[in-house]
Amino acid sequence: MAFGRMANSRTTATDRVTDRRSVETAVTPAIVLVRPQLGENIGMAARAMANFGLSDLRLVAPRDGWPNDKALSAASGASAIVEVARVFDRLEDAIADLHVVFATTARERGQGKRVIGPEEAMGEAASGSSDVRHGVLFGPERTGLDGEEIALASAVVTFPVEPGFSSLNLSQAVLLVGYEWFRIARSGALPFNTPAFSRPASREDLVSFFEFLEQALDQSGYFTPAPKRANMWRNLRNIVHRIDATEQDLRTLRSMVVALARERRKADPQ
Amino acid sequence: MAFGRMANSRTTATDRVTDRRSVETAVTPAIVLVRPQLGENIGMAARAMANFGLSDLRLVAPRDGWPNDKALSAASGASAIVEVARVFDRLEDAIADLHVVFATTARERGQGKRVIGPEEAMGEAASGSSDVRHGVLFGPERTGLDGEEIALASAVVTFPVEPGFSSLNLSQAVLLVGYEWFRIARSGALPFNTPAFSRPASREDLVSFFEFLEQALDQSGYFTPAPKRANMWRNLRNIVHRIDATEQDLRTLRSMVVALARERRKADPQ
Repeated sequence: MAFGRMANSRTTATDRVTDRRSVETAVTPAIVLVRPQLGENIGMAARAMANFGLSDLRLVAPRDGWPNDKALSAASGASAIVEVARVFDRLEDAIADLHVVFATTARERGQGKRVIGPEEAMGEAASGSSDVRHGVLFGPERTGLDGEEIALASAVVTFPVEPGFSSLNLSQAVLLVGYEWFRIARSGALPFNTPAFSRPASREDLVSFFEFLEQALDQSGYFTPAPKRANMWRNLRNIVHRIDATEQDLRTLRSMVVALARERRKADPQ
Repeated sequence: MAFGRMANSRTTATDRVTDRRSVETAVTPAIVLVRPQLGENIGMAARAMANFGLSDLRLVAPRDGWPNDKALSAASGASAIVEVARVFDRLEDAIADLHVVFATTARERGQGKRVIGPEEAMGEAASGSSDVRHGVLFGPERTGLDGEEIALASAVVTFPVEPGFSSLNLSQAVLLVGYEWFRIARSGALPFNTPAFSRPASREDLVSFFEFLEQALDQSGYFTPAPKRANMWRNLRNIVHRIDATEQDLRTLRSMVVALARERRKADPQ
């Protein structure tokens, strides 16, 4: 029954994916969930894909049929990826157009295939020619990919984790693959960077601040005993240098010193 | 009410953490969940920590009090981390023993702090002296860290994600920090590597196989037209070279050729 619905949804989804693909970079790797069990996990995987600019989601024989309301609601803002996901009965069909296929596994599975981490796999995907399509297979939540499925892959991808606690859930595994894709293909661009509120202080600003500070410290009796003065003052200036102060920072510090000096005179009239 | 319970649990947890710490590397960064809302997320964060060898979990004013059964059950195999988590009323107390504190935020928060990615932050944590303790702050699920909390940090950590879809859930953010910690501090050691089932084939094995194959192909009439023979044979040997064959691989290939040749003779008796 469920598979009857899938046939319809597959046709529609393929058309929409084609539209979508035309406005996207063609080389992002495909994420292939093989026999996924829980709709929630499909939705969470779609969210993880959206976090890292992936959009080509393929499902092979999802246990609870397709479409799946739980997948849609768990995807939240990434529901578009779930809506255009392509669904296949057989893994062979899901990967037919791909050139390089990685199979994720948490344990050694005895096939003698090359074993690499997500960093190396996504490095290959990101550096390949744009007409070489990559895909990553993820197995069912409970059992992982079976031997026949792994045999269809070019290499095994496993995650650098503590050997004693290596279980990642499905969406976490997709998250780490997406993270490495973005880190490598997009050079790990952060969504925002260190803000510049004010221009860096010029050396002139800094010298002016030091003169002001030195005078204030002299008046406060800071430099005692006198023979240590040179060292004390050099240490203090070095601390201020380490701030890499902006113009605004120096104004803030200057007004702090003014306030402190005023407070002292009030509290301890001399 | 909830905070009354916390005070008790805090004392116990601290004692146990001390025991635990003595058998662990001292320099793994602390994970500090500030005002976490859902027990499930605390448990999932603990699992993510266990995946990557982190164990120092600290909670500041968890919304639903402490201990929290949902946190324990979501932690599953990582419940030991939840059991020894230390709970604090104030963030200042939670980070008092740390030297470098990173605040994770998904948006620019206008404090002029240095903004770095998890890779750079964990690079600093992994390369620091063992008596410099690092910690990473994660805010409440709904709102993230507030301005006062961010002000307590040395730098802001944000994640390299699509600007249009930057929401990571709490345990995913912990997962990515843990992943970078393990990747850098443990050089990304994979839990298993490419297996060697059989010794690599010696050049002698390979030459022997080539002689066998060439004879079989001669008998099958593969090398036509004759002037192309040299090129055809070189291409074929190059393909076999790319297999990086083991001794076992060559036995497998040899028996395949034997079987194919036998089949041909049966089907097309000549």
